[in-house]
Amino acid sequence: MTAMIRNEVFSCFVFYGVLLVLKMYVIAIITGQVRLRKKAFANPEDALRHGGLQFHREDPYVERCRRAHMNDLENILPFLFLGAVYSMTGPSLAVARLHFLVFFMARVLHSVAYLLALRAPTRSLAYVVAQVPCVSMAVQILMAVAGYA
Amino acid sequence: MTAMIRNEVFSCFVFYGVLLVLKMYVIAIITGQVRLRKKAFANPEDALRHGGLQFHREDPYVERCRRAHMNDLENILPFLFLGAVYSMTGPSLAVARLHFLVFFMARVLHSVAYLLALRAPTRSLAYVVAQVPCVSMAVQILMAVAGYA
Amino acid sequence: MTAMIRNEVFSCFVFYGVLLVLKMYVIAIITGQVRLRKKAFANPEDALRHGGLQFHREDPYVERCRRAHMNDLENILPFLFLGAVYSMTGPSLAVARLHFLVFFMARVLHSVAYLLALRAPTRSLAYVVAQVPCVSMAVQILMAVAGYA
Repeated sequence: MTAMIRNEVFSCFVFYGVLLVLKMYVIAIITGQVRLRKKAFANPEDALRHGGLQFHREDPYVERCRRAHMNDLENILPFLFLGAVYSMTGPSLAVARLHFLVFFMARVLHSVAYLLALRAPTRSLAYVVAQVPCVSMAVQILMAVAGYA
Repeated sequence: MTAMIRNEVFSCFVFYGVLLVLKMYVIAIITGQVRLRKKAFANPEDALRHGGLQFHREDPYVERCRRAHMNDLENILPFLFLGAVYSMTGPSLAVARLHFLVFFMARVLHSVAYLLALRAPTRSLAYVVAQVPCVSMAVQILMAVAGYA
Repeated sequence: MTAMIRNEVFSCFVFYGVLLVLKMYVIAIITGQVRLRKKAFANPEDALRHGGLQFHREDPYVERCRRAHMNDLENILPFLFLGAVYSMTGPSLAVARLHFLVFFMARVLHSVAYLLALRAPTRSLAYVVAQVPCVSMAVQILMAVAGYA
């Protein structure tokens, strides 16, 4: 069982995958801090605890944080699946690491571009660059298992 | 390690799982294209690049695409977990493929029904049909590991 | 292949992971039932089938259910990744089960606190408690694979 964790490609994938999960947690923490600072709560019970029902309201920067988080769910979670399976198809460590590293760096840039509202199309470019290793892994996996459909 | 990818049931699961991830990517691409065509951007920096802040606005069809994507996250991502674990419980290939194929076809129909706004309850039926193999896999997994709680 | 499912730690993880997936499905079912009872549909085609386009509208309790579901996606899905990989790092069964059990119970409490709108900060505390085993697993995984970055 622990043979998997001793596989170099899988371990490399796990390293970047876990860092990206922690990155998602950081966005959740930032969202919570912005809610407190801007006094903008999604639930009346939270607003009541922090000053009154008038703070049960939306805030543009809270919504921005939530969109950044949502985009992570749409992209990082599928990567956790693709990366794990791709690691099992026997790629070379150098090529596999390149896939993981490009995805990792592009998704970190995506978050920074989102939270700092960097000028377009920085964020969109980061999104597209991160998709390249994902589509590459998907195609390589499909070629490896195509006979089992 | 690569023994997993040579397992027939697991490879069959991976085949449909990867196709469904690609299906989710297609919905993301469609959403982006609709945003450009309808000029309805979620972020002011995107609107500025495409004509001005007046295009920082919502559009009903963009929201429809986003609901379709969200529903995929709620259902396809848990399937990627259930299917992988179910593959390890030693089901017969024919029964397992039936689970994966029913889920796959129902989720493709769900996306088509959502994006084309097909008459109710087409989309809801596709959703329910896709849940059947998921609940079946969940029950079979629980029976296989019940002694380890 | 089926060696994984016979590993005690992995099986313990799978047990709680599958229960949490079923818990997420329950929230989806509740959301659908509330939509029918309150006549508040996200799609015009659903509203048309249930009395008319005036029921294509939002409802505060439906939105609460959706926030509970969304928070599950943000937290339970990453747990399914972290728990699986953590199981492969060779932890003791007692320590691993404690991680899974704390997460499981805190996330069940989170859902109850959300759906019943329990007084703050019940829900937030449940969220924080559930994050503790996740961050613990993330750190332990990173230590196990740190050499492979």
